[in-house]
Amino acid sequence: MVHSHLLHPLLVIAAVVAILFAISNFSSLKRIIIGRPMRTKELYAKHNKLFWFMALLVLAADLYSSVAYGPEAGMTELASLGSDVKWLILPITIATVILLGILIASYIMGVMAYPNGGGAYTIAKENFDKPWVSLIASSALLVDYVLTVAVSVSAGVQAVASAYPVIAPHATTISVLCVIVILIVNLRGISESATVFAWPTLFFMICMGILILTGISDQFQHGFVQPSTPPFGVMPKGLTTLLILKAFSAACSSLTGIETISNSVPVFRDPATKNAVKAYIALGLITGATLLGYSYELYVKGISVNPQNTMLSQLAGVYFGHSIVYQIMIWSTFIVLILAANSTFTGFPQLAALVASDGFLPRALTVRGDRLGYSNGMLILTALASLLIIGFEARTEALIPLYSIGVFVSFTIAQIGLVRRWIRVKGSYWKVKMSMNAIGALTTISVLIVVASTKFTEGAWIVLIVLPAIIFGCLGIKRHYNQVANELRIDFETHKPSSHHILTIVLISGIHRVVLNTISFAQSLNTDVVAVYVGFNEQDIERMEQKWEDWGSPCRLITLKSEYRSLLGPITRFLKRMETKEGRPDHVHIIIPQFIPRKWWHYFLHNQSALLLRAWLLRNKDVVITTVPYHLQK
Amino acid sequence: MVHSHLLHPLLVIAAVVAILFAISNFSSLKRIIIGRPMRTKELYAKHNKLFWFMALLVLAADLYSSVAYGPEAGMTELASLGSDVKWLILPITIATVILLGILIASYIMGVMAYPNGGGAYTIAKENFDKPWVSLIASSALLVDYVLTVAVSVSAGVQAVASAYPVIAPHATTISVLCVIVILIVNLRGISESATVFAWPTLFFMICMGILILTGISDQFQHGFVQPSTPPFGVMPKGLTTLLILKAFSAACSSLTGIETISNSVPVFRDPATKNAVKAYIALGLITGATLLGYSYELYVKGISVNPQNTMLSQLAGVYFGHSIVYQIMIWSTFIVLILAANSTFTGFPQLAALVASDGFLPRALTVRGDRLGYSNGMLILTALASLLIIGFEARTEALIPLYSIGVFVSFTIAQIGLVRRWIRVKGSYWKVKMSMNAIGALTTISVLIVVASTKFTEGAWIVLIVLPAIIFGCLGIKRHYNQVANELRIDFETHKPSSHHILTIVLISGIHRVVLNTISFAQSLNTDVVAVYVGFNEQDIERMEQKWEDWGSPCRLITLKSEYRSLLGPITRFLKRMETKEGRPDHVHIIIPQFIPRKWWHYFLHNQSALLLRAWLLRNKDVVITTVPYHLQK
Repeated sequence: MVHSHLLHPLLVIAAVVAILFAISNFSSLKRIIIGRPMRTKELYAKHNKLFWFMALLVLAADLYSSVAYGPEAGMTELASLGSDVKWLILPITIATVILLGILIASYIMGVMAYPNGGGAYTIAKENFDKPWVSLIASSALLVDYVLTVAVSVSAGVQAVASAYPVIAPHATTISVLCVIVILIVNLRGISESATVFAWPTLFFMICMGILILTGISDQFQHGFVQPSTPPFGVMPKGLTTLLILKAFSAACSSLTGIETISNSVPVFRDPATKNAVKAYIALGLITGATLLGYSYELYVKGISVNPQNTMLSQLAGVYFGHSIVYQIMIWSTFIVLILAANSTFTGFPQLAALVASDGFLPRALTVRGDRLGYSNGMLILTALASLLIIGFEARTEALIPLYSIGVFVSFTIAQIGLVRRWIRVKGSYWKVKMSMNAIGALTTISVLIVVASTKFTEGAWIVLIVLPAIIFGCLGIKRHYNQVANELRIDFETHKPSSHHILTIVLISGIHRVVLNTISFAQSLNTDVVAVYVGFNEQDIERMEQKWEDWGSPCRLITLKSEYRSLLGPITRFLKRMETKEGRPDHVHIIIPQFIPRKWWHYFLHNQSALLLRAWLLRNKDVVITTVPYHLQK
Repeated sequence: MVHSHLLHPLLVIAAVVAILFAISNFSSLKRIIIGRPMRTKELYAKHNKLFWFMALLVLAADLYSSVAYGPEAGMTELASLGSDVKWLILPITIATVILLGILIASYIMGVMAYPNGGGAYTIAKENFDKPWVSLIASSALLVDYVLTVAVSVSAGVQAVASAYPVIAPHATTISVLCVIVILIVNLRGISESATVFAWPTLFFMICMGILILTGISDQFQHGFVQPSTPPFGVMPKGLTTLLILKAFSAACSSLTGIETISNSVPVFRDPATKNAVKAYIALGLITGATLLGYSYELYVKGISVNPQNTMLSQLAGVYFGHSIVYQIMIWSTFIVLILAANSTFTGFPQLAALVASDGFLPRALTVRGDRLGYSNGMLILTALASLLIIGFEARTEALIPLYSIGVFVSFTIAQIGLVRRWIRVKGSYWKVKMSMNAIGALTTISVLIVVASTKFTEGAWIVLIVLPAIIFGCLGIKRHYNQVANELRIDFETHKPSSHHILTIVLISGIHRVVLNTISFAQSLNTDVVAVYVGFNEQDIERMEQKWEDWGSPCRLITLKSEYRSLLGPITRFLKRMETKEGRPDHVHIIIPQFIPRKWWHYFLHNQSALLLRAWLLRNKDVVITTVPYHLQK
């Protein structure tokens, strides 16, 4: 694919990095883009409990939007077999809807078990002793959140590109820009108005309903078997069980996002659990009905896979031409897919913060940004999703094989965790509940095996490598934190601060106001003070020694000669001599003066070798380093 | 032009930046690429005086290589008028050779005046009082050095692309890579074997000689007017004086590099001046003869401009087909053009260091790198030349209009400077010498006016904007250095170090081994010590205060609450309170502990907020900041 220079995705990334850098440095720009910083206590003022159907709409984008690409992903697997396969969309979708029913039933059990909201990670943590089990769940979920962003945004842009083919060559760049816009919106943190997200989803549901009803009324007028309707039940040449399983596992990508409600039970009005269950049942019915109706229409109209034109766009085109209704259809698809990506910007950082607070990920992920969101998590999500989009050139069908693995890994662990929980906790009807989760677990593990084996060569292997790598990384991080904690722990009784013998070394480059300030500071500390001068030749050194005497030798001066014109060598050799000297100090303390110019470009006019020296010494030697700034007036 | 993703020039640049970054950080890699560091005294061991013809060859690459593109650049201006213009190559080249003679004569005067080597900058500095006159010369030369690299390398790659059209689409990338290779060679500093550079130039001279002699013997056999020979003296339609002037000024790019000998008189064996004059005359004769012979052959064979195939390649093709002789011709052209670029890697950094030592450019340019070259200047030259190559897509003809301006600006200033010198210094035959420089000055200023006016819209305006910008920048830098020097100057009698009242603030995040170390260090300094803890909520603060008491309150603890989860706000407000307090300290001294992990990736596991805080405080507050490192064992 040919990109113009300016729209090259890597340039876009570079621009974004530059912008983020700018944001982090120029606080006024940051204020404009991100908004004013917010107080920690504002966090708790925000929660409004939602009516169950409103909560359903707010949480539905992730699951319901998958309808737009799930059936198509399934049929893409079979596309090579010609047009005889078209009828297979019906059995595959029916199987998917049955799986949906099983999963909804077992997630309802999850909601009952964890009314405070419990994702796969929480369930696994509570019901398995080994941390690696819950890490499998969390890693699978984190990987999946990244893939949700990549897949949803790519699918959204693909939908728009079906209507406007001119943008197709720039799909990668546009997708990355969409991710960045979502990032900025989320860095601002607009979750105080979560209900805003309800309406586009509702609108998309209505659009899908109108599309299906228009189709059915068309069929009542023109018959249920039309010229375009492919023959049912014909076995296409070359069809194998493996291919059907591949198609089914790809179609299962319609089911991603099913866990959202179970993670967010507390947003429902009381009785929260009951309302969440109600929402689950309703969402299951709506999604199932849409999947069945939509697939049936695709079948009747004999629509086949076309990489330039999504099936949804083709079907809408059949009924509405390129009218305004078609346009609305396309844009509502785009918006609901972007919303699905957007919901991930809450899920990923929250899960990352949860895992990080357990010590398995860097602690920086637990820090809330200016607008109270976990901004570090959001930035990482953006970077990873953008890399995936660029790597796979925004092709939804290429990303989906990676997707399904993670989904079904976390589904399976959550189900098994729930089974263990019912056995342990029991409670009313526990056997029924346990059986439902057991059925769920068996189903998801079967699907998982199908996906992993059939999609292995098409990208699933990436996930099968990445997941263990993440888990090992998490265990390594935990080990590091534990070791550091042990190393740092002190006994309050025996470990008290004590005084040391300190040698203070002042690095000087001549005799001027900065050196005067620095030596004054050093001598105020009441430690041993020596001034050290590094000269590049004998004459410099003699001149310096003479000047020092003329100034009245305020402290001892040691001159070092640098044959290689670098400060590092002579100074490290000097420090080594100090270390081996008798009566050596407990601490060596080096004072380095630093110019602070008033204009940024003046930095280029003053040697920054002191800065490099400081970094090197801190890293490699056990010395304390003090920077005495000198703010230039001009 | 379409680039493959991997060879996109911006990616190449990014890779180079990464490599340079790596070089500056990983010293073992740096050692492999650049070589061991060298002692300062090794600098003076290197000079070998050269026999005059050897010196000529070493210094000739820059001027002589321009033969490869100068006549072609002239004819490119006329190409739009069709094939009737072909004969004009003869008068234009003759005019160029006359200009060459005048310039050589006046440069010989320069050599006599400045036997220690004196470029335009030195001449201008000695003969004009105002610094801006010499800055015009130095800026023009620096700009020209950058353009020499861009033009020579582009022309070299263009020569090779004539023989191997497959590389033509990647000319930009290959040119940038060539510049980088030249950089690395020069960072290594191989000038101890300068005579190595003599042979390729001699070889190219011989190649050109063979080409011309083959032609002349061909003409003795087949007549001096051949079927391919265009009619002489026909006035082509649309020919204007302006066009002829444009063609002439473009052809004058053959004359760049003429100043090299005058800059390097000391490399000649004694009597150096006499030998340098001899070399100048010989080089003038060789270059003039080559230009005339080469143009004559182009005329006889009726060769016209073709962007895909250089004229030199076409002519060589006429006589030698695509034989091995042709290949040798092309590659020797390439090598001599690369050598011309290479010579700039000595000239630019030396001039920059000279100007910087006068205070008009950043002082970092005067620092010799590990291998005794001015490595900062080389890096800047590489960056600027690469940007030009990328910006102009390695098209020689697009770069040449920018080129000639700088050349003739510095020529003119040097000539006028010499005129002023002869008037001032006088000496034997000074009137003759002065007249020759006056003629030189008049000629170069006329050419300058022609170039600036005819090429204004084709890029010359860029130089006419860049030159004043550089000069103003240089004057600004000088002003800044003077102001800083005044600000820093102290009186040795009255300004002596004195003791101050210092308040030491230790930032703590809890009670552990690092805090223990840091407080021990602070208390060893015998200043007032307070520990400051920033908590994000009331509970944290209460818990910290309790622990501090349990630990026996080794010093006063001040707790600050951060409502916005940042350290910066509470600490700056605390510092402000300190400043306005009565009995405030003369200096505030903040001690920040810093973790130094053993593995680089462990940095991501520890918050770096202390680092950001340090940078902000140094920049914006008048506080001394001490870093106490804690080297983690694991």
